[in-house]
Amino acid sequence: MAEPRTIRSKDNPLLVRVRKLVADPGAYRKLGEVWLEGDHLCSAFVQRGGRALQAVVSSEGWSRPALRQLAAHAAAVAVVPAELMAGLSTLESPPAIGFVVATPTAPAITPDAATVVLDRLQDAGNVGAILRSASAFGFAQIVTLKGTAALWSPKVLRAGMGAHFALRLVEGADAEALAALRVPLLGTSSHAGQALHEIDLPWPCAWVLGHEGQGVSAALAQRCAMALRIPQPGGEESLNVAAAAAVCLYESARQRAA
Amino acid sequence: MAEPRTIRSKDNPLLVRVRKLVADPGAYRKLGEVWLEGDHLCSAFVQRGGRALQAVVSSEGWSRPALRQLAAHAAAVAVVPAELMAGLSTLESPPAIGFVVATPTAPAITPDAATVVLDRLQDAGNVGAILRSASAFGFAQIVTLKGTAALWSPKVLRAGMGAHFALRLVEGADAEALAALRVPLLGTSSHAGQALHEIDLPWPCAWVLGHEGQGVSAALAQRCAMALRIPQPGGEESLNVAAAAAVCLYESARQRAA
Repeated sequence: MAEPRTIRSKDNPLLVRVRKLVADPGAYRKLGEVWLEGDHLCSAFVQRGGRALQAVVSSEGWSRPALRQLAAHAAAVAVVPAELMAGLSTLESPPAIGFVVATPTAPAITPDAATVVLDRLQDAGNVGAILRSASAFGFAQIVTLKGTAALWSPKVLRAGMGAHFALRLVEGADAEALAALRVPLLGTSSHAGQALHEIDLPWPCAWVLGHEGQGVSAALAQRCAMALRIPQPGGEESLNVAAAAAVCLYESARQRAA
Repeated sequence: MAEPRTIRSKDNPLLVRVRKLVADPGAYRKLGEVWLEGDHLCSAFVQRGGRALQAVVSSEGWSRPALRQLAAHAAAVAVVPAELMAGLSTLESPPAIGFVVATPTAPAITPDAATVVLDRLQDAGNVGAILRSASAFGFAQIVTLKGTAALWSPKVLRAGMGAHFALRLVEGADAEALAALRVPLLGTSSHAGQALHEIDLPWPCAWVLGHEGQGVSAALAQRCAMALRIPQPGGEESLNVAAAAAVCLYESARQRAA
């Protein structure tokens, strides 16, 4: 294991860089580095064979064998006092460990993968929750269109709870790039005649989810092979988009299992 | 319509009270008033026959006929300049209208209603999303146990998008109070043998959802008539709780429709 160095100044370049990653959701694109906050995310990264550029551990955390072991999966380790660790987090209880890892190279679209397409979703919590659902229900690929919350931002990572590392993530595509997908695109519409449980859903497929307020763009809706209704006997106007996503992805999984 | 009064001081007692409601998620219990932020929530309240104690409208909003019409559903109207309106919101773009309404009297548990039980859920966004799903999928009653995010707080209201007004909301119950429910309690468990789509789900029923980290308490799990597995072919460890709720409530609705 690398010998840890102790950082005592908040002006240390490493901490300055991490604070940029924490403050700006899109900074990882410019800096080429992603900040993984907390032992759950760091462990998920390591379990998928990841190796971090840098571990940052609080002085208190460094006294815990489990965190020392986790930190051993980084090329370098820095130990920082609690008050500096607090500056690296937006949480009320800052974590005891974080990793700086290289921003994953965005892969090309895999044409035949079961996919979830996100069209300008704004809320980091929604996006992270959808990544978890995708991973749980056997979807292998996420494609986000320009304007969607940045996938490797600290908030989406936190909400994703490690699902990032199980998925193929294609970020910031434009609508034309979706032509590369050879699986049928499925959209949802409250006006559609057919409900998603009334038809045999194709597999693999790509579910398309849209902006929290505006839904899917008209151009993207036209690319969909079909639009399906989520049955809502209560008659409310709409579901939260991450709830709608969970229902669609579950229904695909249920039909495969049945 | 009541003549509007113009408020120019941030120390005005009405604005002080609204700021308390915005800053403290549980303040509505003490103050007996709830703050509904934005025209969507105010409209949803009015559509269910609600009458507000007070409308607060920005100067800009007061020039819009639709908002004047909405404000007419309040016993009194105050017009405030944009900079004071901004102090009544945690949003970057503060709304042009808000209502102060009387805190709804917590009803008793309806024994036979299709219900969702929330056990110490922390995240306001999750709780609001679950209310929307409940309303959409035909569940009439929400029962929250002590320690769950406050239902009438601004953040849960915002995430609920008006679903609050379509539901019977029983807040802060203790586990014993659930004995009043005569519908079977259904829990979820990743260790359960049976998946929820493999059995005929009882209707009406009460789905039980637990704390984001800890799940449902052991005492509450024992009250459940059955625990069911959500099939997760991707093998991830867990879904976001609002995503899990959407799947359970949808599956109940799907089976009823089928």
